[in-house]
Amino acid sequence: MTNHMRIRAEQLNELTALVMRRNGCNEAEATMVAEVLVEADLRGIFSHGTARLKRYVDHIASGIIRPNVEPKVVFESKMAAVYDGKGGVGQRIASIAMEKCLAIASSTGVGFCSVRNSNHYGIAGYYAEKATRQGFIGISTTNTAPLVVPTYSREPVLGTNPIAVSFPLNGRTFLLDMATSVVPRGKLEVYDRQSKEMPVGWAVDENGNSTNDPAVTLKALLNKLGGILPLGGLGEMFGGHKGYGLSLVVELLTAGLSQGEYSKETYSERGKICHFFGAIDPAIFGDREEVIKSLSRIVDDVVDSEKANGQSKIYYHGEKEALKRQNSLEKGIELDPKTVELLDKLADEFDIDRLKWEEGR
Amino acid sequence: MTNHMRIRAEQLNELTALVMRRNGCNEAEATMVAEVLVEADLRGIFSHGTARLKRYVDHIASGIIRPNVEPKVVFESKMAAVYDGKGGVGQRIASIAMEKCLAIASSTGVGFCSVRNSNHYGIAGYYAEKATRQGFIGISTTNTAPLVVPTYSREPVLGTNPIAVSFPLNGRTFLLDMATSVVPRGKLEVYDRQSKEMPVGWAVDENGNSTNDPAVTLKALLNKLGGILPLGGLGEMFGGHKGYGLSLVVELLTAGLSQGEYSKETYSERGKICHFFGAIDPAIFGDREEVIKSLSRIVDDVVDSEKANGQSKIYYHGEKEALKRQNSLEKGIELDPKTVELLDKLADEFDIDRLKWEEGR
Repeated sequence: MTNHMRIRAEQLNELTALVMRRNGCNEAEATMVAEVLVEADLRGIFSHGTARLKRYVDHIASGIIRPNVEPKVVFESKMAAVYDGKGGVGQRIASIAMEKCLAIASSTGVGFCSVRNSNHYGIAGYYAEKATRQGFIGISTTNTAPLVVPTYSREPVLGTNPIAVSFPLNGRTFLLDMATSVVPRGKLEVYDRQSKEMPVGWAVDENGNSTNDPAVTLKALLNKLGGILPLGGLGEMFGGHKGYGLSLVVELLTAGLSQGEYSKETYSERGKICHFFGAIDPAIFGDREEVIKSLSRIVDDVVDSEKANGQSKIYYHGEKEALKRQNSLEKGIELDPKTVELLDKLADEFDIDRLKWEEGR
Repeated sequence: MTNHMRIRAEQLNELTALVMRRNGCNEAEATMVAEVLVEADLRGIFSHGTARLKRYVDHIASGIIRPNVEPKVVFESKMAAVYDGKGGVGQRIASIAMEKCLAIASSTGVGFCSVRNSNHYGIAGYYAEKATRQGFIGISTTNTAPLVVPTYSREPVLGTNPIAVSFPLNGRTFLLDMATSVVPRGKLEVYDRQSKEMPVGWAVDENGNSTNDPAVTLKALLNKLGGILPLGGLGEMFGGHKGYGLSLVVELLTAGLSQGEYSKETYSERGKICHFFGAIDPAIFGDREEVIKSLSRIVDDVVDSEKANGQSKIYYHGEKEALKRQNSLEKGIELDPKTVELLDKLADEFDIDRLKWEEGR
């Protein structure tokens, strides 16, 4: 890790928002993109942070994302709403939908929203945690570009389809935010760049057979064949059919309930990405404090279990990211040279002052 | 597969109910145990069928299960209820809780129940599908005996913690019913009996290291060490931390929300198993028929994707079991010699006429 550069979250946020503004986003859209991307960087989830800013810019240029568009409620009931994102900015649409869940749940105890015709919304966990910061159990899930093969298929019709679920604990948040595939596409790309063999069980070739060559899978994907395996890997020996099932549940909650497009059909003309959000008040199950105490007790006891040989700590989900976030807030976010270069280029291209980087690691 | 014997579902149901009656269960309890166990056999999920009847009998004898006990509502809100099962019969308690979810959801659109102090409830999918037979999206999950190690732990504090989710399709049901561990304990026992090596990635020894010897894990478990790995396997390379996260979410929904015991604490004196159920009306997201059409279209398109080399069919979840069920209803349920012997013994022990078996495969 050399030549990393350090930057304050506020400054990174400001640049990101400005770039989006210069690309036609209104203020609310630019604010949300900046907020969600910088949150990812703060937590150390760099694959979903400002390293991705150029892609949003490109997607606006190609018409995949339409800036300055308000999502529309196309169906509403006492417990739920369905949005048509009209091809707009994912982070803004998702934020509105989660706010709606919270508004519904604040009066009824439970609220759900399903969304169609949206775009990449950043880290799924951001929206779940937003609910939990207000005391709710949060749910956030989305379909994505098609990259994952169903069990016994050789066609990548499913997305990496992340599921995020968060629970309020005493002074902390449990936040599971997981792709339902074994690994994300970015992992294959890293192995490919380093000319490294992948572990068998990550991906398949164009015939649906295991391969340890990331280039084989990445090339096959260009022809809409092969792809990443669902969590659990190839076939059923290690539970690949379970990951396939979780991925399909994501498609049903997002595209199914919103009557939108499923992963295979996304990124044709517009993004067409679908999301699903939920907020559930723990107080519908008992005294709020008692319920949160019960949730916290379990998490504390599990991470206190006997460590495996050579291990010094058992984490609960979201703990590592919360520690990293604290550190990033104190010392600044450290970005790799490639991201630094990319952000400088974007600044130049859109006539914005470059960030005042400090030396990192 | 030799010496299998064939029996009609109704006759198997009758025997099962009678055995439970002779062991102190009231009629409602006996009916539900018979219903759920025979449903498992009908679907070919023999590990959770009448092969397990002896265990219920033993659990009543040892006081783990208390027969003839009614669960009690300990908290109720507009959207949810919490039950104390008072150590009673799992299938009966779960059935009451899912009925309650459906009653709540019938008036509001959504209903949840969390349950503590229950017992083994059979196949998780039974209760989810019960909701879907009435047109709802169904959710059913439970904690279990402690058998699974968290990522980087060597102590089996989590259960195999199954999650079942079902959606109504046109004339069919999508039913995902999956343990959040790589495999169930029964799989290790089968490999052990056959003196076969397990694949690496299923289980760990008492130190938390991978082992391919099922006897090593089964022996370690007697000392509350080692165990089965979460879905995704050892460490994080294949996503084991995701299976660990799903398992922990199950603990939070079941034991957390009901303020009950989590898997590590179950089976001390009484069963103390916790469940969670949900029912969601698809009509809160739009016209019911249109939503179901949208769900069905996605499932149909996914299973219609290009088959991998050597594969002839891609299944959706619940499809294999539905086909098997149809076949079992037509031709009778085929049980293995060990289960046949066990059921004959139980019949003798409780002074019931033996089943009139027919020759099977």
